[in-house]
Amino acid sequence: MGDMTDDTRWLDDGEQEVWRAFITMSGALNDQLDRQLQRDSDMPYTYYEILVVLSHAPDRSMRMSELAGLRGSSRSRLSHAVARLEQAGWVRRQECPTDKRGSLAVLTDDGFAALAAAAPGHVTAVREKLFDRLTPEQVKVLGEISKAVLEGLDPDKQLPGCRNLDH
Amino acid sequence: MGDMTDDTRWLDDGEQEVWRAFITMSGALNDQLDRQLQRDSDMPYTYYEILVVLSHAPDRSMRMSELAGLRGSSRSRLSHAVARLEQAGWVRRQECPTDKRGSLAVLTDDGFAALAAAAPGHVTAVREKLFDRLTPEQVKVLGEISKAVLEGLDPDKQLPGCRNLDH
Repeated sequence: MGDMTDDTRWLDDGEQEVWRAFITMSGALNDQLDRQLQRDSDMPYTYYEILVVLSHAPDRSMRMSELAGLRGSSRSRLSHAVARLEQAGWVRRQECPTDKRGSLAVLTDDGFAALAAAAPGHVTAVREKLFDRLTPEQVKVLGEISKAVLEGLDPDKQLPGCRNLDH
Repeated sequence: MGDMTDDTRWLDDGEQEVWRAFITMSGALNDQLDRQLQRDSDMPYTYYEILVVLSHAPDRSMRMSELAGLRGSSRSRLSHAVARLEQAGWVRRQECPTDKRGSLAVLTDDGFAALAAAAPGHVTAVREKLFDRLTPEQVKVLGEISKAVLEGLDPDKQLPGCRNLDH
């Protein structure tokens, strides 16, 4: 498409090569991590991510709106995933005590146990597929790149946090 | 999870920080590029990617099995996407002349035109959200990282290519 006469700042050959490599790598890495979790722990990667985020949150709970903002995922997709996690007994939903509009997702003990059982296989895959392939300097630069790009992405519209959980 | 006594090579704090930043960035970047394409060109990013790959292939056609291998996407997901692209008149399917088992996806003129119309908005978003945020050195290292990780990923099982298209 690069020969069109318009104002578009097309990618040059080197940029195109970097972009194709990056987008292929990140898609394939995501797919392979998903397959490992499905195969060994019977959960998709998106569910694992939700359990991880809740496990680090105060009281292992978080507002649905905050949870959606974290991965840039839509509210409807998140609601669907959380409904499935509720069916599995890994997450429960409850009203936010300070805001009737808010709804909290809470990690259950069973959910924490499922996460703990899945974590060794997942972390081993992340180490083998990413960290073992890179030099310490490349790891450092990957962190810098990721933060620089994240800062430029449109922030998701979030409701204010559920106050009494900010401790 | 890092305090378990087992053989897992857990990520240290610095590695965890890089991993969280990377996985959040790549997920959010993908989502935002998808939203731009849906909003401005009424196609999901996965469809755009298929059109791009076909546009670069000899005769603008590729075996379905090769196409699936390129993004590590499953055959069934790809079949679904190509069926939708067929309905839109952007891709047509035909038998591979040298292999009765093979099936080719071919980009139509309408598909090429749809891609050409969508490309400026997409490339502008890629430049603004990724390249404009990075130094030339970071872009170079991102290419090296992406290739190093790709080389370590499990190759997808592919059928041999459709011979008379290798020109």
